[in-house]
Amino acid sequence: MQGSFSIVGLGRMGAGIARRLMRAGITPSVWDIDAAAIKTLAGEGAAPLADLEALTSLPAPRTVWLMLPAGQVTQSTLESITPLLSEGDCIIDGGNTYYKDDLARARQLEEHGIAYIDVGVSGGVWGLEEGFSLMIGGPGDHIERLDPVFDALAPGTGTVPPTPGRDGADPRPEKGYVHCGPVGSGHFAKMVHNGIEYGLMQAYAEGFDILKNARSPARDAALNYDFDVAALAEVWRRGSVIRSWLLDLNANALTADPALDNYEGYVSDSGEARWTIEAAIEQGVPVPTISAALFTRFQSRRQQSYADKLLSAMREQFGGHIEGKKPSGRVPVK
Amino acid sequence: MQGSFSIVGLGRMGAGIARRLMRAGITPSVWDIDAAAIKTLAGEGAAPLADLEALTSLPAPRTVWLMLPAGQVTQSTLESITPLLSEGDCIIDGGNTYYKDDLARARQLEEHGIAYIDVGVSGGVWGLEEGFSLMIGGPGDHIERLDPVFDALAPGTGTVPPTPGRDGADPRPEKGYVHCGPVGSGHFAKMVHNGIEYGLMQAYAEGFDILKNARSPARDAALNYDFDVAALAEVWRRGSVIRSWLLDLNANALTADPALDNYEGYVSDSGEARWTIEAAIEQGVPVPTISAALFTRFQSRRQQSYADKLLSAMREQFGGHIEGKKPSGRVPVK
Amino acid sequence: MQGSFSIVGLGRMGAGIARRLMRAGITPSVWDIDAAAIKTLAGEGAAPLADLEALTSLPAPRTVWLMLPAGQVTQSTLESITPLLSEGDCIIDGGNTYYKDDLARARQLEEHGIAYIDVGVSGGVWGLEEGFSLMIGGPGDHIERLDPVFDALAPGTGTVPPTPGRDGADPRPEKGYVHCGPVGSGHFAKMVHNGIEYGLMQAYAEGFDILKNARSPARDAALNYDFDVAALAEVWRRGSVIRSWLLDLNANALTADPALDNYEGYVSDSGEARWTIEAAIEQGVPVPTISAALFTRFQSRRQQSYADKLLSAMREQFGGHIEGKKPSGRVPVK
Amino acid sequence: MQGSFSIVGLGRMGAGIARRLMRAGITPSVWDIDAAAIKTLAGEGAAPLADLEALTSLPAPRTVWLMLPAGQVTQSTLESITPLLSEGDCIIDGGNTYYKDDLARARQLEEHGIAYIDVGVSGGVWGLEEGFSLMIGGPGDHIERLDPVFDALAPGTGTVPPTPGRDGADPRPEKGYVHCGPVGSGHFAKMVHNGIEYGLMQAYAEGFDILKNARSPARDAALNYDFDVAALAEVWRRGSVIRSWLLDLNANALTADPALDNYEGYVSDSGEARWTIEAAIEQGVPVPTISAALFTRFQSRRQQSYADKLLSAMREQFGGHIEGKKPSGRVPVK
Repeated sequence: MQGSFSIVGLGRMGAGIARRLMRAGITPSVWDIDAAAIKTLAGEGAAPLADLEALTSLPAPRTVWLMLPAGQVTQSTLESITPLLSEGDCIIDGGNTYYKDDLARARQLEEHGIAYIDVGVSGGVWGLEEGFSLMIGGPGDHIERLDPVFDALAPGTGTVPPTPGRDGADPRPEKGYVHCGPVGSGHFAKMVHNGIEYGLMQAYAEGFDILKNARSPARDAALNYDFDVAALAEVWRRGSVIRSWLLDLNANALTADPALDNYEGYVSDSGEARWTIEAAIEQGVPVPTISAALFTRFQSRRQQSYADKLLSAMREQFGGHIEGKKPSGRVPVK
Repeated sequence: MQGSFSIVGLGRMGAGIARRLMRAGITPSVWDIDAAAIKTLAGEGAAPLADLEALTSLPAPRTVWLMLPAGQVTQSTLESITPLLSEGDCIIDGGNTYYKDDLARARQLEEHGIAYIDVGVSGGVWGLEEGFSLMIGGPGDHIERLDPVFDALAPGTGTVPPTPGRDGADPRPEKGYVHCGPVGSGHFAKMVHNGIEYGLMQAYAEGFDILKNARSPARDAALNYDFDVAALAEVWRRGSVIRSWLLDLNANALTADPALDNYEGYVSDSGEARWTIEAAIEQGVPVPTISAALFTRFQSRRQQSYADKLLSAMREQFGGHIEGKKPSGRVPVK
Repeated sequence: MQGSFSIVGLGRMGAGIARRLMRAGITPSVWDIDAAAIKTLAGEGAAPLADLEALTSLPAPRTVWLMLPAGQVTQSTLESITPLLSEGDCIIDGGNTYYKDDLARARQLEEHGIAYIDVGVSGGVWGLEEGFSLMIGGPGDHIERLDPVFDALAPGTGTVPPTPGRDGADPRPEKGYVHCGPVGSGHFAKMVHNGIEYGLMQAYAEGFDILKNARSPARDAALNYDFDVAALAEVWRRGSVIRSWLLDLNANALTADPALDNYEGYVSDSGEARWTIEAAIEQGVPVPTISAALFTRFQSRRQQSYADKLLSAMREQFGGHIEGKKPSGRVPVK
Repeated sequence: MQGSFSIVGLGRMGAGIARRLMRAGITPSVWDIDAAAIKTLAGEGAAPLADLEALTSLPAPRTVWLMLPAGQVTQSTLESITPLLSEGDCIIDGGNTYYKDDLARARQLEEHGIAYIDVGVSGGVWGLEEGFSLMIGGPGDHIERLDPVFDALAPGTGTVPPTPGRDGADPRPEKGYVHCGPVGSGHFAKMVHNGIEYGLMQAYAEGFDILKNARSPARDAALNYDFDVAALAEVWRRGSVIRSWLLDLNANALTADPALDNYEGYVSDSGEARWTIEAAIEQGVPVPTISAALFTRFQSRRQQSYADKLLSAMREQFGGHIEGKKPSGRVPVK
């Protein structure tokens, strides 16, 4: 690969990317706002940058991979770096950026002759060992030039045989990365990936919730459904229709803490499901499970909501029902 | 109306029914497990029953309207009363009974020649003044015989002009009661009525929740959306597409307590929405809003759920996210 | 009221507004792209405008109420009119505009000293007779100056007594209009109103769908639930918890055509529910029924979707299920 | 293993079970209503039964595994077989039976001293090669006696390492089978498994639907999002958070037919998701994604529904909107 390759942002994901590249014999220049993070990676063989200005002295074409936690930091860093780069250089945003923002950025950088590539990266904390799934959007010439980087970061075919019928197709997807289309399409694909992820997680959560709350259908004390949820997760990991990497993680968590007492149950969301729903609505595509998954997370963070209180108020108004302290949660039916 | 008419169960609804009948010149015999309730109504002109056995001395055909709070009490009372009645008598269940239970009861009573009528009653605490909406299932001859009772209880046409095009149609619906069909159909219709009610309530709750949480789209301090939710409810009561009796109740509640601080937000459910969803699933009819409304009530009563905790556990597993105390509930987007 | 008042856009809503003003003794100047529409209203007493330039010769302060069908037409008309107006004049947008667009417009007009008021108008084709429910956002001085217009258009207190406890509160909501807050807040409130409307409509639709598909729970031919849905709607209009104006409309439609054979069932959406969901997501407010209502409309317009086909493809893959022509839709359970 | 082992029902699943047992050196007796199915398996080494009565001559204890397609056939076959068995024998139901029916059956068979075991079997058409995931409910002594059968059918640990922390735990789940608890618990667990499956499938379907309908956010012809959905599925199979066996199947289907033209999109449901929702409702557990998945299947089979038509009717009533032929499905927003 010609020129230089730098990584700006050495958090969990950025450091993992640097290390995986080094394992493949590619030495990145690295920078982070935290000097200790730079020092650690330099100790492992990366080339430390004294400051962002040092980018100017690297060989051209310069490629700078931004791996920063939030949209605003990414945007301000991108603006700081732009004047330091020259025509023919390239900025990659590997964060979870809103795809419409990619378009605006690409147009701005185009005025300076700088290419912009958006990469959706999946794999989380496991990516260093297992490789990162990469969804790439942007200009084909730069993406081809950077193929060694993407190839090194991706998981490779590994133990997953290619899907039958792919003979003659682009071999990159079989190694875990893909050029999705023009700018923004990489983050769009990653956004949808995360939207799916929300739905999958919620489906597992509902299922284990039912199992944990299961009661015997008979009022016979000898019949008591008291499921070993960790054992069920373990069984389903083999041969079942619902086996998946997320199920493996469920098994990890349920084996370590079947009652999940270590968790409080306030669930964050990182934006992509919101954008997925917005995109779906723009297209007129129904997304009932993805929206249900997002709304469940909202609800987990805001009890008792104004809506809940208004429901109680209406019930008092029409039925004289006074609803106070938390009831048992179980209403006998039939 | 021939014979005698008794009411068993003098709670809010049963007492309201007794009083509304007396206003129409029909004197019911009354009984309740609480002697004070009998005494109160006797003081207003009702005929007190010393005990349930006293039903035997009333003129035939005897009609006994059960107005009891829960399914089990209704069932056991019905079983106590059955031996006291004779061929040609009639039992009415005005509670919120599961319609499949009506069928079983009707078959049992049929063996004794006793008729069974199921009546779904809507109107809540306002029914005494405004009349009760009645959905009636069972044998036509008894229902016709009891027409004066239903006519007295129903709201009457009042200020609500009949829908154009009903000329020649059954006049009873225009007065607020209807013979729905064979046994169980009255409670089935009431069940669906309540299912709709859940969906309507949830729709209002969501809307006012958005208004209460609304923030200005501009970061301009001069622009601050701080909606007067009571005023909006008041406006919508006139001329808007969403005006309704439930909206009137929203206006009552929001006027009295706009922050809804008097409510804790643990919302009960009384079973009918569960049955509605079950019936819909048996028929293959999608009911996304009715189920969303029910699940929201479940969720209001069970934070933080096992499902919520499992979502946090998965997020820790794949992303190293540690989710602890309740966050702000607002994640900045874009 | 000082100055002049014009209406641009004389479709169903715009013409209704003009006529309701004339009934109250206010004579609007009127214009439409369709000369016939101008002529009709001129015949009823309105002041016809030869063209938009004629606005310049009207007395100041000039108020121009835009009542146009779509966002783009409103925007381009607003841009055409702006140069014709002067400092102190006022533009009202009575359409269903996205509230964030209101902010941009208000800022632009502010540079010319022109005020901008957004009015959410509910009432549909019935507004002329019953009055329009008005949600108003923008500068208080102009809104007060235009009070006679809003007062004439609103339904008035009519037969709807004010909610108890409003003594001393702003009297305008009791007449059916309200100043919601700064610019955009009127359309925001109308947007939420429409979001609620979607949820309400869907709840009724689900309920009547269940009733229409109801089968007897017994396999006894003598027991057949064959609900008269029009009669049930009629009953519920009186005394029931779910009575509403939308229920009145249901009764109209079901009385005229109980099988609904006149409708094909492709249901449009006009954008406000989309914006409501977007606003809710920005605030972290769960809106499961409003989103379910919107997604149901999407689905009604796109069978069989790519998602549906992919579900069949997965079922074939794992279970060998071949899914072809439309099955009966009813799967026997238990 | 003592005694005899028979399989009744040699469809895809039953035949797969027979073959997998034979590979493990266990020779089942086999019977099916279709003589050709018996003959095929006899040709592969199974012991053909001339008729069900032939069960009586097999060595005791007799174990009969029923693997029949539908509940009613299973029930009637079970009733035919019961008189042919003796105290100490055992019937296994490997179909998708409603768990409450298991309880009734077990009680009936108990009167004859016959044990009843319910086994939820996952794995579909791939089970023969990959092994079947087994969820087993019933009496522990018989389940232990039959361990060689379950061990042979299950996938075994294979390439899936046990979850860390399971040291000392029951080793069976690590081989792909589990004794869940008393009778019915195996089918309960399988029911929940299938409920989860519905949610997972729907999440993938929504995501690919968005990708297939994706349009560029820019109105720039040079920017066109035209996703290669098969390539994305292929990428996600490696290293992504959403990799799973169902994703492998998606990749198979999308590679073979990216437009999914071979599918009509009428999606069946087999009952378990219905029961899962029913169980969740009995427990007060919200299941928004599982219900959304089921309702989407309902909707796929019933366009245009009565509910859809009623929505159009309401819109005509209040807004004069006439909704006829299928519109484009895309409403421009903002």
